[in-house]
Amino acid sequence: MSATLYYFDGRGKAEIARLTMAAANIPFNHETIREKKQFETMKSEGKLLFGQLPMVEFEGHQLVQSSSIARFFANRANLLGSNEEEKLKIDILFEGSRDFNSAFMSYGFVGFTEVLDKAKATAMPKYLPIFNSMLSKNGSNGYLVGSKISLADIGLLEVVLTIEELLGQDELKPYAEVQNFLTTMKSNELIHKYLNSKLRPRKNDEKYVAEVKSVLY
Amino acid sequence: MSATLYYFDGRGKAEIARLTMAAANIPFNHETIREKKQFETMKSEGKLLFGQLPMVEFEGHQLVQSSSIARFFANRANLLGSNEEEKLKIDILFEGSRDFNSAFMSYGFVGFTEVLDKAKATAMPKYLPIFNSMLSKNGSNGYLVGSKISLADIGLLEVVLTIEELLGQDELKPYAEVQNFLTTMKSNELIHKYLNSKLRPRKNDEKYVAEVKSVLY
Repeated sequence: MSATLYYFDGRGKAEIARLTMAAANIPFNHETIREKKQFETMKSEGKLLFGQLPMVEFEGHQLVQSSSIARFFANRANLLGSNEEEKLKIDILFEGSRDFNSAFMSYGFVGFTEVLDKAKATAMPKYLPIFNSMLSKNGSNGYLVGSKISLADIGLLEVVLTIEELLGQDELKPYAEVQNFLTTMKSNELIHKYLNSKLRPRKNDEKYVAEVKSVLY
Repeated sequence: MSATLYYFDGRGKAEIARLTMAAANIPFNHETIREKKQFETMKSEGKLLFGQLPMVEFEGHQLVQSSSIARFFANRANLLGSNEEEKLKIDILFEGSRDFNSAFMSYGFVGFTEVLDKAKATAMPKYLPIFNSMLSKNGSNGYLVGSKISLADIGLLEVVLTIEELLGQDELKPYAEVQNFLTTMKSNELIHKYLNSKLRPRKNDEKYVAEVKSVLY
């Protein structure tokens, strides 16, 4: 059964849901929210439990909260680990990837270069060595936990793709394991297909930021 | 087997771990971090994956990320739901409770009254009616999902206890289901025992805020 994702015309809080549905091989289409009226209608119809996007309709459910959506689909495709030890590691590393990712979430909303300068000064030198080390400790096989893709990888992938696109591959040069991880992820057939599809939104630009603000405020 | 929680002498990001360990009937003791040197030593020994507290030592694991710690212990005690539908609801409502709780996390750190004024103006009128409604839809039995305590309840409990203590019971009067929920939670033997023990830290005060800042900066 296919899913329908409701979100703005950009990545934002929905990108982890898109990446996870892609990796879990769940077909989905995108309902783009461009006008305040659409958003208000969804809220008044009770479709958004906390009055927020993204929301995913799937099998009669209205899934909200981006991490919950990701865990739900990851669970369907056995991407949460196969034993308690793996499940714990994947959960912790996914949460860490969310903290790391939050450094880039406001790109365009509180400036463009400002956000990147701050991420280069704080989040990147903090998190990249840690994830590089975890990839090494797991055997340098391109995965954070075990020997296949997990939600932890999907979480890290979102951030590393952002860094590559917004700051360039050179930023990853000191982190050989992260580079190897990125190659492994991009060679995943499902991930590759999604990243090269029209479902993958463009990076934030001024038009997107203005559209989101016009819906929310 | 008992757990050891490492955190500052207050609630903060560790309180959800404490409440969950209590509800899961996991005995724990508290190692209080009061000095920068303790914190730096833990980091240099590699005990803090992301260089952050809280950390819980349990069965040879060093658990980090507050939500991951909570889910780990909740899973041990079957507090994450008994089928996919329940698991999904509990995950979403727990995530919502984390967003709600974040409105109070900076109490004392960016002022005392300022934080409460802002929570009264925004987070409380947003989240309290939603949780009140979810409690009603679940049958007004004092639980958010199903007929026993879950991690969703523990997440909401943290916030409701904060509101009761910092703003007074009157704030909850418009929300009969939330009041009933609070009574149900407080009558839970394991929760009751924890809340009346020395393990439950006091609310943030100036001394606590100064101590945390001296460790972190």
